[in-house]
Amino acid sequence: MISFASDYIAGAHPRILERLAETNLEMLPGYGSDRYSISAAEKIRAACGCPDAEIFFLTGGTQTNQIVAGAMLNNTEGMISAVTGHVNAHEAGAIEYTGHKVLAVPGRDGKILPETLRSYLETFFADENHEHMVFPGMVYISWPTEYGTLYSKAELKAISELTRAYRIPLYVDGARLGYGLMSPENDVTLKDLAEYADVFYIGGTKVGALAGEALVFTKHNMPPHFLTQVKQHGALNAKGRFIGVQFDTLFTDGLYQEIGRHGIEKAEMLKRIFRERGFRFFLESPTNQQFVILENRQMEALSKEVEFSFWEPYDADHTVVRFATSWSTTDEHLEMLAEILDRILE
Amino acid sequence: MISFASDYIAGAHPRILERLAETNLEMLPGYGSDRYSISAAEKIRAACGCPDAEIFFLTGGTQTNQIVAGAMLNNTEGMISAVTGHVNAHEAGAIEYTGHKVLAVPGRDGKILPETLRSYLETFFADENHEHMVFPGMVYISWPTEYGTLYSKAELKAISELTRAYRIPLYVDGARLGYGLMSPENDVTLKDLAEYADVFYIGGTKVGALAGEALVFTKHNMPPHFLTQVKQHGALNAKGRFIGVQFDTLFTDGLYQEIGRHGIEKAEMLKRIFRERGFRFFLESPTNQQFVILENRQMEALSKEVEFSFWEPYDADHTVVRFATSWSTTDEHLEMLAEILDRILE
Amino acid sequence: MISFASDYIAGAHPRILERLAETNLEMLPGYGSDRYSISAAEKIRAACGCPDAEIFFLTGGTQTNQIVAGAMLNNTEGMISAVTGHVNAHEAGAIEYTGHKVLAVPGRDGKILPETLRSYLETFFADENHEHMVFPGMVYISWPTEYGTLYSKAELKAISELTRAYRIPLYVDGARLGYGLMSPENDVTLKDLAEYADVFYIGGTKVGALAGEALVFTKHNMPPHFLTQVKQHGALNAKGRFIGVQFDTLFTDGLYQEIGRHGIEKAEMLKRIFRERGFRFFLESPTNQQFVILENRQMEALSKEVEFSFWEPYDADHTVVRFATSWSTTDEHLEMLAEILDRILE
Amino acid sequence: MISFASDYIAGAHPRILERLAETNLEMLPGYGSDRYSISAAEKIRAACGCPDAEIFFLTGGTQTNQIVAGAMLNNTEGMISAVTGHVNAHEAGAIEYTGHKVLAVPGRDGKILPETLRSYLETFFADENHEHMVFPGMVYISWPTEYGTLYSKAELKAISELTRAYRIPLYVDGARLGYGLMSPENDVTLKDLAEYADVFYIGGTKVGALAGEALVFTKHNMPPHFLTQVKQHGALNAKGRFIGVQFDTLFTDGLYQEIGRHGIEKAEMLKRIFRERGFRFFLESPTNQQFVILENRQMEALSKEVEFSFWEPYDADHTVVRFATSWSTTDEHLEMLAEILDRILE
Repeated sequence: MISFASDYIAGAHPRILERLAETNLEMLPGYGSDRYSISAAEKIRAACGCPDAEIFFLTGGTQTNQIVAGAMLNNTEGMISAVTGHVNAHEAGAIEYTGHKVLAVPGRDGKILPETLRSYLETFFADENHEHMVFPGMVYISWPTEYGTLYSKAELKAISELTRAYRIPLYVDGARLGYGLMSPENDVTLKDLAEYADVFYIGGTKVGALAGEALVFTKHNMPPHFLTQVKQHGALNAKGRFIGVQFDTLFTDGLYQEIGRHGIEKAEMLKRIFRERGFRFFLESPTNQQFVILENRQMEALSKEVEFSFWEPYDADHTVVRFATSWSTTDEHLEMLAEILDRILE
Repeated sequence: MISFASDYIAGAHPRILERLAETNLEMLPGYGSDRYSISAAEKIRAACGCPDAEIFFLTGGTQTNQIVAGAMLNNTEGMISAVTGHVNAHEAGAIEYTGHKVLAVPGRDGKILPETLRSYLETFFADENHEHMVFPGMVYISWPTEYGTLYSKAELKAISELTRAYRIPLYVDGARLGYGLMSPENDVTLKDLAEYADVFYIGGTKVGALAGEALVFTKHNMPPHFLTQVKQHGALNAKGRFIGVQFDTLFTDGLYQEIGRHGIEKAEMLKRIFRERGFRFFLESPTNQQFVILENRQMEALSKEVEFSFWEPYDADHTVVRFATSWSTTDEHLEMLAEILDRILE
Repeated sequence: MISFASDYIAGAHPRILERLAETNLEMLPGYGSDRYSISAAEKIRAACGCPDAEIFFLTGGTQTNQIVAGAMLNNTEGMISAVTGHVNAHEAGAIEYTGHKVLAVPGRDGKILPETLRSYLETFFADENHEHMVFPGMVYISWPTEYGTLYSKAELKAISELTRAYRIPLYVDGARLGYGLMSPENDVTLKDLAEYADVFYIGGTKVGALAGEALVFTKHNMPPHFLTQVKQHGALNAKGRFIGVQFDTLFTDGLYQEIGRHGIEKAEMLKRIFRERGFRFFLESPTNQQFVILENRQMEALSKEVEFSFWEPYDADHTVVRFATSWSTTDEHLEMLAEILDRILE
Repeated sequence: MISFASDYIAGAHPRILERLAETNLEMLPGYGSDRYSISAAEKIRAACGCPDAEIFFLTGGTQTNQIVAGAMLNNTEGMISAVTGHVNAHEAGAIEYTGHKVLAVPGRDGKILPETLRSYLETFFADENHEHMVFPGMVYISWPTEYGTLYSKAELKAISELTRAYRIPLYVDGARLGYGLMSPENDVTLKDLAEYADVFYIGGTKVGALAGEALVFTKHNMPPHFLTQVKQHGALNAKGRFIGVQFDTLFTDGLYQEIGRHGIEKAEMLKRIFRERGFRFFLESPTNQQFVILENRQMEALSKEVEFSFWEPYDADHTVVRFATSWSTTDEHLEMLAEILDRILE
């Protein structure tokens, strides 16, 4: 059965597997001190236009978010997130496990509006009782968001100005960063991101790697003894090379962009297929996740022939479902999807 | 430079990389529900002679230990370990991060003697004040230990009888399990281990995988909602296939045993090389880690030509260092080592 | 300056101090095993009509909430609370410090509506991805709420039926329980509470004690080794007698009810004073906390002569402030308040 | 039955109860901002000769130790303690609950020898793998120790010099500080303590208070938002006055010293009673806890008429038991003890 269930249904981009094989027998030191991890970090620094960035490779997104919360928040601080943010909704309490509260604020289409953030911060510090409350200690946004939407450069700038005014870091979850960067509607570069964010991660798992995320500290702000903190979270890989080689490959000859572009092109085709057949979208997503409103009977029929993700009920008769494309989506997959849809709509 | 620094200096066993490539484009569901993870678990159950074992694939050893502690200890309980146990000494406090104390007891050559354990448990419950103390909630042993030594079947049985009498689980850290199983001095089978241990893990990272450990619950005792607990630790891999395929390969056609046997053969050769040249060993290790006592000047000279691990000072003039073999150690590596030693001893 | 800032502005009810003095030189065992703690527990069991209730005395409300969360929630579970619940809003993250998420749901006047709760629970378990989310593991309500309001017997029953259907405990924070029980609008008895709640606490600190809360487990559900868990939280008092004697006194000759009734009578007088002078209330509170809407200029003038608590802004020109009565409020205090108001309104 | 079971068997020193009664009806603000807490802090500063000391009142000793660990240790750090230290042995894992390891080092008679500490620190930082280990982040000593012994001024100085050289705080648990200060063998003043310790607490619970400890930060090193951190631990008392008044009384007219002196005088009498009758002591304690070696049959007979604490087995036929004196011990109690001993020895 073909699947649009997510952007992690296939293995790794073939070039990554090749490099893993080529370097396999080299004897390399552990824990990320190998030459490939070092080279990957160097290439990421260049791509970010941030020569002093400190970079650490981790295995997964929830793990990365958890470590950032645990390492960068003070005891009394929580992490501001949209209600729909991954850290608030779908990480099984990984942030709270570190002892920190997620301070959930209302969002729109997955994004925190700058004015919402401003109001939250102003209200907090104006409250006479705020010493009895969890301090806002970091702002978490995802880019693209869990709904595939993107903050514009102006929005990022506005949020960044707020976090700097309040002296708290802005953290950007870039699990699907590659698809955001290559979106036709995007006006944000990796350099912009490195400028506005104090810390962010470049997603590998959903952008062509077997597993792996590159955490980037842009402001000389990597927490002290960070390797020890990662170890304490059980997240330090003995064979750190295995992520180093992957990111070294992703940032060679533009592979990361190539993957992002491919995913976006297929998403555009997918959108057209649905739109041409009269389907409605839950919201306008310019990236590789598309949220389609299906009649429940359609949904059931469709689910027998193609995989996608249940998202949320829309109304009594309709459901929002998600279709995701990625580096591994092919024209054949999309043609099959179109055929299946036509058959169901007959 | 050749390296005996550890058993994780090379990538993955080539057969693993091949299988990753072969299965790469298959569309598979995430989070360990793919067919390879399912098949790997089935093969491990068969190998353990434990048809009902519950199996979960994780990425690293400290992570696995941390999750076992967090998921299986009650609030008031700690984890008994030898002072030299990995959880006590070299995990940067990963167990304490879960809120649980490591209850360190003296060991011998890395092992907890059954009588030490008995005495600890008896003394604890005899103490009138024990309600003000951390309860022993689990026994952690490593097999092989951090010093390469092995519990015999009789010792495992004795410890297991104690933990059952006190109704606490026995947990075996098998980071280097493969090398223990294939040791000429070993009388323990995987089935024995599955019988005596309540939970244990089969190490992949140090036995030929890129990363990955197979956690085995042998007594219908996987904690409820374990997937959610793993997610909460940031340890749930989206592309679970990547570990599933590796273990499926390791447990096909005896690859896991083959790797173990290879590592042990090379360790025996390495021992001979040192012994023939008059070097002393810190202790008798029957597995792939060998602890050699070097004169400090020798150590310095040697370190310029070959990599090994500093272990601990022996006396003012000598140091204990570790040499490790693995699936990737070759005869050529050993011959080079012998030559270098001869040169230094001249 | 007279103060209505809270119900903890005075020391202890004089009868409590007397009993502390009378019993002061008795040699008693520590940690709550003294005869007064035992007697107090017996009296509370009788008052609750719950002869098997298990009772533990703690020092403060946030501490009690934290220990209940830490001891009764499983690893994957969070605590459902109204957004305005004390555990969510004003405990500086004490619940999250135990590693558990507060699952905040919208409330009305401080209360969770049974239908809101039903919908939350149904939606959670209907979600295909709920294994990636924090499970609802307990329902927290405060009675009276942070806004002075009360759940009716029918509402408690409805919530209790839901929590039982979902097999999660209902926990009632009774920091101000005494004032709720004696409210003219209340139809809930201590016995009802013991029936509907699985665990609740009877507030002492705000109802006449120096410090102290009585935590009541009503369904043979005190967590194992609870004393050890309390010790682990740093909450076990060596001189447990000091809380035991206080609760023994509070539950002798109806003192707890007497204090509640006194506070309520004074609250009714206070309401009348404001109402007669044309002030509006933010909401109708039938207990000892009254939320008055003041014009900002009035508020400023008033604050020079009487203490009260800032609550929240109402609009650009008005603020919600809280006046609290207690066992220590006197007619003289209220007369002075009336005079001051008259002066300000001139 | 008379009791020497501990120094917390009686209530509060009568002068404390009097002051609580005298100040009972004053309307005071909460959370430690009342005038008595402020005055108590001022008096403690003067007594410590440390005009800038920051002081916070807490309820119990384990709570205080836990908050100090949680607030002052960085993520990667643990707390060095003697194996016999209260934080390691008898706090039910309260330190580990904050996520931090207790780094237990061998002691002598309850004390850490400066050379032991020096060696521990040197070895740690010399270890090439120390980034995989828990960093020493604080030194915890108790004064008097759990065995009633005292560090001399020279020992404190030596330890303090080490902690400063390594830039980690020295924390002194003064649960029984008053008895230490008044010991005839003591050469340490409160000023010395304030000089050598970076943070310490002056015990109230065991020195005449109902409950309460005064935590003193001596080097402008109170952690930021400390009130919020205390709240987060559930340790912030609404009626903070109740501890403030107690310490204000303890530090008025030398009551704290008077209580200490009384306890020590009675301990000296108690020692004489045992010594004159040929009993042996487990060790020489110069403070209010005395550790006597009893034949098991004697112990049993004695336990029918007087209360004391079981400490630890001495050999097959003997047991170490503890007798404690305090402010509430009287000559009559001691005479009764002497009579009972004589009767048993007949």
